[in-house]
Amino acid sequence: MVDQPLWEQIGSSFVQHYYQMFDSDRSQLGSIYIDASCLTWEGQQYQGKRAIVEKLASLPFQKIAHSITAQDHQPTPDSCILSMVVGQLKLVVPQSVFFILFS
Amino acid sequence: MVDQPLWEQIGSSFVQHYYQMFDSDRSQLGSIYIDASCLTWEGQQYQGKRAIVEKLASLPFQKIAHSITAQDHQPTPDSCILSMVVGQLKLVVPQSVFFILFS
Repeated sequence: MVDQPLWEQIGSSFVQHYYQMFDSDRSQLGSIYIDASCLTWEGQQYQGKRAIVEKLASLPFQKIAHSITAQDHQPTPDSCILSMVVGQLKLVVPQSVFFILFS
Repeated sequence: MVDQPLWEQIGSSFVQHYYQMFDSDRSQLGSIYIDASCLTWEGQQYQGKRAIVEKLASLPFQKIAHSITAQDHQPTPDSCILSMVVGQLKLVVPQSVFFILFS
């Protein structure tokens, strides 16, 4: 952990926090977004905290689990961190389990 | 094309330009990177134009083709564009063709 660059530590902590919140109670994700935030979901674009929170709330599944298989973090010139996450989405419905690649 | 947001037009033009250059003569990609640029390649990080150009030049394949299946573009608060590209890498070697998912 100590040998990791700072952006790796912050990025992986953020990703863990984000998906834990998404999987436990995604209505809380509004605290993360700001008015300049963008979300692209299956090709559709949502801009601003309100539009994003509405979209996330309207998703048809109740219970979902993100299983992360790889993540990369990069520092940006304006002191932000760009994170790229790849993994599987596990949608839990009665008697069935589906796996979907997400990124 | 006219109905697309500006960031979609610029983003998709850039992506097309980038991968055309990558597939035809990737030694020219140095013109795109600056000293603040980052590249993550199979988990390894390369920062700065020089390190990135050296890494790209050292890749073992000669002839490669990127086939793009999906791309998303988002405006950022500092007037940049964030592009996410998913597709297949086609590596052409004698008698064989490999497909690799890239993103």
